[in-house]
Amino acid sequence: MPSIFSRIIGREIPSHEVYSDARVFAFLDIAPLSHGHVLVVPVEEQEFLHELSDESAAALGVALPRVARAMMAATGATAYNILQNNGAAAHQAVPHVHFHIIAKYADGSGLQLGWNPHTLSTSDGALLAAKIREHLRA
Amino acid sequence: MPSIFSRIIGREIPSHEVYSDARVFAFLDIAPLSHGHVLVVPVEEQEFLHELSDESAAALGVALPRVARAMMAATGATAYNILQNNGAAAHQAVPHVHFHIIAKYADGSGLQLGWNPHTLSTSDGALLAAKIREHLRA
Repeated sequence: MPSIFSRIIGREIPSHEVYSDARVFAFLDIAPLSHGHVLVVPVEEQEFLHELSDESAAALGVALPRVARAMMAATGATAYNILQNNGAAAHQAVPHVHFHIIAKYADGSGLQLGWNPHTLSTSDGALLAAKIREHLRA
Repeated sequence: MPSIFSRIIGREIPSHEVYSDARVFAFLDIAPLSHGHVLVVPVEEQEFLHELSDESAAALGVALPRVARAMMAATGATAYNILQNNGAAAHQAVPHVHFHIIAKYADGSGLQLGWNPHTLSTSDGALLAAKIREHLRA
């Protein structure tokens, strides 16, 4: 069963398309947080970012700045957030990878962020970084 | 004057490094939102994502899933957010492009998101999408 985004990419479901190539499809979010809220989606249907092929991931990487530039030119926005959620706990609603580009305005419209940092101790940091490096080498 | 991230990449300032290649450098955020908060930074020093070269953007795209996989394996996290902020209004604090990978846990630790969508009318959507497409063609 294809995802709703695969059906949009296949143009079975209409969308306000802004960009497409062999690997990437971008269109307006129909429930935008602000004027200039675009979804950038890989044609490759994977639920999570960490499942994507290098080819799709590279194509998404290249598309994001290009679509952001065009969104800024079209809306006049000068600030924006890029957000990509993985897992229901992280606010993912559609099980097909998607990057949000969300214009942020001086009136506060756009993405709202809550930021409650703690402090990383030197020993905890060294331990965690070593573990991550180990998995990157594997 | 190099950014603080360029000085970290140059190893003039120490960091808990997790990954590096010719175009990308990744290290732990020292003020993490959760256990498993990594910054993924282009070696190319640009303030905003829309200023990045295709080469750096592609390399960042490829690095994000790889670092996310390793962070998940190292921490046991099963959900995470990718966030990249452009402009002070959008919560950008360091003027050098950086992607946050932020593990999200069942206890709520991680990135907090406020989501107040409105509805995009068909006519507004058609108008905005046409404008964005025009700038993407230019």
